[in-house]
Amino acid sequence: MVIPIDRRSPVPLYEQIVQHIRHLIETDALPAGAKLPATRELAAGLRVNRNTVNTAYEELLAHGLVTAHVGQGTFVAPRRSANGASGSLPAAPSRPAAPRVDWVSLFSKGSSFAEDAFPSVPRPAAGRRPAISFAAGGGNSALFPLDQLRRSVDRVLREHGETLLSYGTVDGFPPLKTFLRGYLLERGIEAHEDDLLIANGSQQGIDLAARAFLDPGDVVVMEAPSYPGAISVFRALRANIITIPPLAAGLQPGYLENLIQRQRPKMMYVVPTFHNPTGLTAGLETRKTFLRAIAGYNVVVVEDDTHERLRYDGPAVPSLKAISRSRQVVYISTFSTVFPGLRLGWVVADRPVIERLAAVKRITDMHTSGLIQAAVYDFCQRRWLERAIRQVNTERQRRRDAMLAALDAHMPEGVTWTRPDGGLWLTVTLPDQLDSLSLLDDAAAAGVLYTPGPCFHANGGGQSELRLIFSQLPLPSIDEGLRRLGRVIKGALQQDTPQKPRQKASIDPMM
Amino acid sequence: MVIPIDRRSPVPLYEQIVQHIRHLIETDALPAGAKLPATRELAAGLRVNRNTVNTAYEELLAHGLVTAHVGQGTFVAPRRSANGASGSLPAAPSRPAAPRVDWVSLFSKGSSFAEDAFPSVPRPAAGRRPAISFAAGGGNSALFPLDQLRRSVDRVLREHGETLLSYGTVDGFPPLKTFLRGYLLERGIEAHEDDLLIANGSQQGIDLAARAFLDPGDVVVMEAPSYPGAISVFRALRANIITIPPLAAGLQPGYLENLIQRQRPKMMYVVPTFHNPTGLTAGLETRKTFLRAIAGYNVVVVEDDTHERLRYDGPAVPSLKAISRSRQVVYISTFSTVFPGLRLGWVVADRPVIERLAAVKRITDMHTSGLIQAAVYDFCQRRWLERAIRQVNTERQRRRDAMLAALDAHMPEGVTWTRPDGGLWLTVTLPDQLDSLSLLDDAAAAGVLYTPGPCFHANGGGQSELRLIFSQLPLPSIDEGLRRLGRVIKGALQQDTPQKPRQKASIDPMM
Repeated sequence: MVIPIDRRSPVPLYEQIVQHIRHLIETDALPAGAKLPATRELAAGLRVNRNTVNTAYEELLAHGLVTAHVGQGTFVAPRRSANGASGSLPAAPSRPAAPRVDWVSLFSKGSSFAEDAFPSVPRPAAGRRPAISFAAGGGNSALFPLDQLRRSVDRVLREHGETLLSYGTVDGFPPLKTFLRGYLLERGIEAHEDDLLIANGSQQGIDLAARAFLDPGDVVVMEAPSYPGAISVFRALRANIITIPPLAAGLQPGYLENLIQRQRPKMMYVVPTFHNPTGLTAGLETRKTFLRAIAGYNVVVVEDDTHERLRYDGPAVPSLKAISRSRQVVYISTFSTVFPGLRLGWVVADRPVIERLAAVKRITDMHTSGLIQAAVYDFCQRRWLERAIRQVNTERQRRRDAMLAALDAHMPEGVTWTRPDGGLWLTVTLPDQLDSLSLLDDAAAAGVLYTPGPCFHANGGGQSELRLIFSQLPLPSIDEGLRRLGRVIKGALQQDTPQKPRQKASIDPMM
Repeated sequence: MVIPIDRRSPVPLYEQIVQHIRHLIETDALPAGAKLPATRELAAGLRVNRNTVNTAYEELLAHGLVTAHVGQGTFVAPRRSANGASGSLPAAPSRPAAPRVDWVSLFSKGSSFAEDAFPSVPRPAAGRRPAISFAAGGGNSALFPLDQLRRSVDRVLREHGETLLSYGTVDGFPPLKTFLRGYLLERGIEAHEDDLLIANGSQQGIDLAARAFLDPGDVVVMEAPSYPGAISVFRALRANIITIPPLAAGLQPGYLENLIQRQRPKMMYVVPTFHNPTGLTAGLETRKTFLRAIAGYNVVVVEDDTHERLRYDGPAVPSLKAISRSRQVVYISTFSTVFPGLRLGWVVADRPVIERLAAVKRITDMHTSGLIQAAVYDFCQRRWLERAIRQVNTERQRRRDAMLAALDAHMPEGVTWTRPDGGLWLTVTLPDQLDSLSLLDDAAAAGVLYTPGPCFHANGGGQSELRLIFSQLPLPSIDEGLRRLGRVIKGALQQDTPQKPRQKASIDPMM
């Protein structure tokens, strides 16, 4: 809180603080229930004696403007009348209370689904030891190639600063697109620069593709389970989601053709490689079956290949885009493997699709930051990308192996899990009588967190599944976390009825 | 076009080029109708003799793979058979032709409006002298505080790199939000950090606000003329746009209340300060009339204050957000004043609105790049922002004055224009018999470009208006450009019927 203090004013300091906070309360800048800063904190910030702040708070309390709760702090009191709860203080030049706006009635239907991206899951009770979270993503920060990136940023600002701080082209920084052309060619994808669009990470690629194709009520086919960030995008556009089993589970010939004929989807969204949340990869034959099935139908396929570079063992399987001769595949990938917080990804698609995506991107945010694009281009051009990927993958492989070993060691009979060749996570399946959402409460109490299966199912289901991220934790935490989880599952298996969730917090399934 | 040339190969260079381009054509990387690079350009890029490229193109032509149009260039020929138009060349390892997808039938209705953001306007004929463009924006690159920004980027990467490259919080980098709280307080806006969302420039603020509130068919009120980037956002969401005169023209009491009661808008989008395209600013009394009119109605007001820091003279007028006691105003502004290409802006709104915007932002692109946010925070924290704004504004004021002087000097009688106190542009109004869209063709031929008025009108109109950006050009170009434009207008006034547009190009009205 910044309070203008005038030390030469005849008004005492505590009174200046009172008047300013009263003004904030009366103008709704500090709404009812808002917490005032701790007196020590405010005194330090304003460089006044702590007693001065104590006196000011007592004055506010005396006039009913704030309430105090021992051990919790000082809070703005509920309003007592329409024109402010100024109590017996001399009337300040106050303004009548603002009429309330009924936001809920004004929000769009689509945006209410955007909020569903944050399911409420239990939080460990206060005072407990910090939880070991298998639900948190974010990249392996200790391995970030920071010095190299610093050099790249510095160089591009020095050499091309004027260009990079001016408005750029909506489809991306041309040298980065040219680099990507070669990068993609190494993965069997031939793309002209005009077939490429730079986006703020693969999440924006999904959002742009969805906006370019889906009107309310349009049918989109996706795997169940699948990436929650895609489920929310489709819901926010009020699309009609139809689910299929993950491609990694294989595909019966005729199954998709039948579905397409019955449901007439406009779009199919799939994650064939290191699928979210199972970590599994669809085989080459399944991919060919998939592409044969969609050929000849007027449907666009969005292939989310976000995690393709995270392979630790097993042979690489080419992307749908690489083996497809059809223009139907819109391919999305990202630099988040190495730099998640920079927010940089790309889309490869048939030229008319790129043009449409660019038109949507333009009204969304004009273009992706030129500085970020140029810095990553410079970084890649110096062959630092491949080295950085090797480094994080070596560490992630170790962690995946540690998780598989810890699952073997700590899980009771009846619990199964996937064994991915790469990626960031795997899926554990509980015995039928257990529910991953209810169990999370016990897990949180025991100091371990995961993402419950229902987060990944667009149309319900997944109660016996849970996702564990192995990439983020050091080896001892992986073992200890799974020891705790194993104990929680064993305990629940011995109980009759699982407990209901107690306290709620946000776990982020988009990680 | 990058063609791998092996100078030690026994295959002649021209033949290597032929084989590569044939491969690109047969694998659809170069689709039918695609234009090949000019021979001079390709020869330079590949560092081969131009005759080598000519020979390669002639070979491709002889085999029917490409067609040539005098004065236009060389284009990929239409396919002659299902397995490629390889003519009499020996068969390459080719793949059967891809089935065509009918993209137009698949694209969403909303996204087709996104493409309207690029109206087609004339391009100067080839061989003409380069045009002086009053239609191009992009910031004053020579004045960018590059060295300071480099130091800020370097410092934040050194000190907080691990945090900045990890996933960040969707609502923004906390220190930047705290800085903005103080920055806004200086402009009379009291906002808690929870009332703030960081966005990729003000364009994303507009898009997020629109997505948070508007379903297809919802009514949005905006000024006419107004910012084309907002028109396109509302159209892409298939909102029903109702227009009002610019606030800078004043507001009759009762007018808005009447409109609100009749049309029941959900949202009103206004640019009260340095309005786009007129550059004019609504007075304090108009603002108060506006706020009185909306008070008590369940409507959200989006105040686009993108250009508020670009004041060159005249007294500052507080924003609607600053003088409003209602929570109805969603306030959007930006750092693009100094760094347009970085894409960084913010939204101030009532807390439930920020929460909803954050939910939409999250599925759009997770969060704004942490590195950009931290670098700009560091830059601002060192008080470099105010200095940078002063510097660009000094130069822009000079250019505005030069434009006003040049208009006085070169415009014929009957032409009028606005006289803004700041911003980037002004609007010229032509005599009634002239049409700014038709006239643009003559202007382009004479080597001067502007943005025609109809781009700024959501529901038609503006034919006699045109927008001139004064901020981008050096003083002599401003004078020379307006001398040319004056001559074109005088010429058209002496003609009976204005010419129809000849060649089309994209002029960017979002600049």
